Amino acid sequence: MQIAVLTFDGFNELDSFVAAAILNRMRPKGWMAHITAPSETVTSMNGVTIHRQQPLEFAAMADAVVIGSGIRTREIANDPAMLARIGLDPKRQLIAAQCSGTLLLAKLGLIGALPACTDLTTKPWVIEAGVSVIDAPFVAHDNVATAGGCLASNYLAAWLIARGASVADAADALHYVAPVGEKQAWVDRAMGVIEPYLDMKASAA
Amino acid sequence: MQIAVLTFDGFNELDSFVAAAILNRMRPKGWMAHITAPSETVTSMNGVTIHRQQPLEFAAMADAVVIGSGIRTREIANDPAMLARIGLDPKRQLIAAQCSGTLLLAKLGLIGALPACTDLTTKPWVIEAGVSVIDAPFVAHDNVATAGGCLASNYLAAWLIARGASVADAADALHYVAPVGEKQAWVDRAMGVIEPYLDMKASAA
Repeated sequence: MQIAVLTFDGFNELDSFVAAAILNRMRPKGWMAHITAPSETVTSMNGVTIHRQQPLEFAAMADAVVIGSGIRTREIANDPAMLARIGLDPKRQLIAAQCSGTLLLAKLGLIGALPACTDLTTKPWVIEAGVSVIDAPFVAHDNVATAGGCLASNYLAAWLIARGASVADAADALHYVAPVGEKQAWVDRAMGVIEPYLDMKASAA
Repeated sequence: MQIAVLTFDGFNELDSFVAAAILNRMRPKGWMAHITAPSETVTSMNGVTIHRQQPLEFAAMADAVVIGSGIRTREIANDPAMLARIGLDPKRQLIAAQCSGTLLLAKLGLIGALPACTDLTTKPWVIEAGVSVIDAPFVAHDNVATAGGCLASNYLAAWLIARGASVADAADALHYVAPVGEKQAWVDRAMGVIEPYLDMKASAA
């Protein structure tokens, strides 16, 4: 599984790096999450400049895509040239959007009438884009998932691993990153959030 | 409060960025967490190259210091020239170490005989350095805190905010980053972890 973590100027570090780091726990099994950006470097909402690992066009080739969040998502969502560079196919790809990433997903026409999650700041803009927003950290419909609240990115990562590999692999990755002394509780909480949205036949460990 | 988030080659993205992003929720109140590194750029354990915001020597000037973690911490801990560049003073600074950052803290002589937290991988090396490791996500003694397990970085950040500003500010920052629909539960859990270590007189909201 090659995964594009879409990361734009003004990005929220939590939304890109929590998902990417948890997904990269699967590197020994051949997975790789790549920071994927429209330009060679992008600068976070807190002024950290990072180098991309893949260009934006990699999104169309990846097996899975995480759409990160940031303070400039509204501009990007209103930039047809930028949107045209993000070619996603939910029939072939697992697609996960975090916070304001849900707004991009809506503008790309990949949410439709289904309920979605986003953060409290982005919520009015997502509703304005015609999406029904629910008060929950995570929801998935077939191959498209959305999450709301920066640290809900651990649920997106767990869902991607459970769908692309197994529930056991998702639990292992979460167990590693969870706080010492609380690991099983963190795994149980995340599994409780994502399991209603898993096709158990496809993803059983 | 100016905070140095010490970030070395091979760094774990979770350990540097979760703490930095939560601390930077306090920017409207004049706080700033700076990615602080020994070289102009550092590359993470998953191959992401980032630009530092401050040189390593900033650590000595900061009001608070977070020592991040990574896959090369043992090399750094055995590099006297590197250690000499990190001038910390727990009398004047709040100091927080995450996972293998606890090994650096031990090598800097800032733990002594007190129990500390670290991750399961680093644990044997920290014990070898003479530290008593406890099976808990977080512990603090006066101005020095340690945490174990990548996502325990949210407890380090909350403790720093509670100590440097107020418990109410810490709760606000955590509330913002927590998953939608679970926000109060995340705040309550973090507060339950850090409150035994707060001087309530100094940090009451």
